[in-house]
Amino acid sequence: MTTTPNAIGRLPWERMFAGHVADDSGDVITAILKQAGGDGTIAFSGGFPHPATFPKDALAESFTRILQDPASLQYGPTAGLPGLRDWFAGWLADHDGLRPAEDELMITSGGMEGLGLVVKCLVDPGDRVVVEAPTFMGALVSFQRASARTDTVPVDSDGLDVDALERLLTGPGTPPKLIYTIPDHQNPTGVSLSTERRHALVALARRHDLLIVEDVAYRELGFGDVRSPSLWSLAPDVVAQVGTFSKTFTPGMRIGWISAPAELVGQLVRAKQNTDQCSSGLGQLLLEDYGRSGRFDQGILASRAFYRARNRIMTDALAEHLPEGVRFTRADGGFFTWLTAPDTVDPDAFREAARAAGVSYVPGAAFYPDQRGEHELRLSYSRVDDATIPEGVRRLASALASADRR
Amino acid sequence: MTTTPNAIGRLPWERMFAGHVADDSGDVITAILKQAGGDGTIAFSGGFPHPATFPKDALAESFTRILQDPASLQYGPTAGLPGLRDWFAGWLADHDGLRPAEDELMITSGGMEGLGLVVKCLVDPGDRVVVEAPTFMGALVSFQRASARTDTVPVDSDGLDVDALERLLTGPGTPPKLIYTIPDHQNPTGVSLSTERRHALVALARRHDLLIVEDVAYRELGFGDVRSPSLWSLAPDVVAQVGTFSKTFTPGMRIGWISAPAELVGQLVRAKQNTDQCSSGLGQLLLEDYGRSGRFDQGILASRAFYRARNRIMTDALAEHLPEGVRFTRADGGFFTWLTAPDTVDPDAFREAARAAGVSYVPGAAFYPDQRGEHELRLSYSRVDDATIPEGVRRLASALASADRR
Repeated sequence: MTTTPNAIGRLPWERMFAGHVADDSGDVITAILKQAGGDGTIAFSGGFPHPATFPKDALAESFTRILQDPASLQYGPTAGLPGLRDWFAGWLADHDGLRPAEDELMITSGGMEGLGLVVKCLVDPGDRVVVEAPTFMGALVSFQRASARTDTVPVDSDGLDVDALERLLTGPGTPPKLIYTIPDHQNPTGVSLSTERRHALVALARRHDLLIVEDVAYRELGFGDVRSPSLWSLAPDVVAQVGTFSKTFTPGMRIGWISAPAELVGQLVRAKQNTDQCSSGLGQLLLEDYGRSGRFDQGILASRAFYRARNRIMTDALAEHLPEGVRFTRADGGFFTWLTAPDTVDPDAFREAARAAGVSYVPGAAFYPDQRGEHELRLSYSRVDDATIPEGVRRLASALASADRR
Repeated sequence: MTTTPNAIGRLPWERMFAGHVADDSGDVITAILKQAGGDGTIAFSGGFPHPATFPKDALAESFTRILQDPASLQYGPTAGLPGLRDWFAGWLADHDGLRPAEDELMITSGGMEGLGLVVKCLVDPGDRVVVEAPTFMGALVSFQRASARTDTVPVDSDGLDVDALERLLTGPGTPPKLIYTIPDHQNPTGVSLSTERRHALVALARRHDLLIVEDVAYRELGFGDVRSPSLWSLAPDVVAQVGTFSKTFTPGMRIGWISAPAELVGQLVRAKQNTDQCSSGLGQLLLEDYGRSGRFDQGILASRAFYRARNRIMTDALAEHLPEGVRFTRADGGFFTWLTAPDTVDPDAFREAARAAGVSYVPGAAFYPDQRGEHELRLSYSRVDDATIPEGVRRLASALASADRR
């Protein structure tokens, strides 16, 4: 046996990769997922759920039972196991006011796979798509890799600006095929789309034959008592709802869903043959068991309270420590706060000062498809301990102050 | 709550889907994965491992312990958990004679995702690729969806015809980027590539800057005492080895691997950001535990004996019952036998007779990128009980006899 590869030659990789591969986006996510922490840095960067919200006891309790089900360890249907789909269709009926038909719901291996499938089935190179600015960086990478042309609409404290979208749709050029939006506790800003705008958005989509791709990753983690209807429940004819159980169950089994018109779901299921063929049977059965026992709903309530408390600590610390002129959003749910520093802050000096101070975040540029975001950044409070948050904010505030050239 | 979607409109789907979506290949796999059996049909169709080979006891034993590891329920690094990669790199060193470096090995969500990532990173529309004829239908669908031009080389009892590949490489036209091959107990024919041809193949690939994509899905399930070296171990500079743990552990957690040159692995890891971001942490830790305990190796030995016995029952039944003129391959491992009926058998009449008799198989056409395979079919003996195999073969034989127009 040899311990290192006995490489004789080297293939001419520079001319072998597909066209889109030259693009080096995607590295931000890779870096975040690699990040183990542990060097004393306080990491406000990754959008990780907190382990305290993971249902370890429930899993330990149901595992041996689940293992008796032949579906747990075998290949399963590409659209997902019937039992899980049945439970979750009922759950959507109870919580979202609408039950998807059997051919309108599929299980995915997480929200990102769901979005990837939608892009694969709909986006040809050069197609136009619309995103919020800022938006989830993973979506941007998906669209860039599909060689889409990505237009943006701004986000304010009521969510995406529907009037701006209308101007874009009635403007010149080929009409966009879809808009990707995160209406609830948006990643990265934490704000939600108002109910009024939701009605306006679906009406606009219907008039323009625009597919709305609704990412509901953080929908269940709202801090308030009321919430707006999902876009999918308002207009299942023009909305593909992409969801994940990573924030309400665990990311450790890679499970999400798509509720969408049957025409689209049929093609998405076919496309999933080329990713993983089917999602984990074991994970699907464990989730179904967790859901039918009522513990999924209990877990969501506990998670809301958990992240609400954490958000308050974060918001209080930001209000107390940030230098004058730095703005931040007040999230009504989810994991994130979005910071905007004044133009007088030097981005390079700030980056260096933050690294030296031992605090990490995701730079704003990752959330725009163009050259914006230099004075913005995303903070995630989801996985930083309560007691550590104020210290992390102090480090950030001092880095911002030291980089301000006023 | 309403129980059916209140669809007001319908998007113009026919002009919304991406170009490749019109193609309706992939339905064969969807149908196979959906197939639950249960209507009395004896199903030689799906390439499913038998549940008797799944490590239920080992999983039950390790689950509670694994759950204590924070990585089990959290997002993990896109390339895979370090512990699993370390164990498996050592396993490859012991069993394949070569240890991949850290940046030459990644964990995937099964072999199909691995192949999908390779296609995504390498194949632009119009690129030429080479496959064996016949070959795994999932690979054909991947290449078709990427709009590749797919050339074929024939397979005989020693595996793919390397001389035919050389003629193709030295012939006219743009050189192909890659060849996809299953050297061990091939899907669908069951035959393996001879050692001599392996050396010839990697030398040819080096001369022509051709990437070999080596699918080792069935490599560990050989029936004999000796086996040929893997292509990757012979030439890690020009081979991407795509593997799956679905046949040696369980498909229920979607885990596989790729060992390949670091340049390629780096890009594959980036591309995985757009499928599921990372494979199941729970599944990876359970597999590592299974592997380090020695039970992975014991399980492989048991599986070999299990499928060897089943293959013998299948082969004996085919020899006894098939009408004269029907040829079949004698697999030296894996799950499959490949049947070739004489031209005098009417394909439509045979299909109808088989359905009426209650026996299913995968039609040969699914394994070719062109119009071949009308008189061929794949039989999988992996999941049909020993006692049922002879009856299934009798049904098949009588359907073949009844459809023969001689």
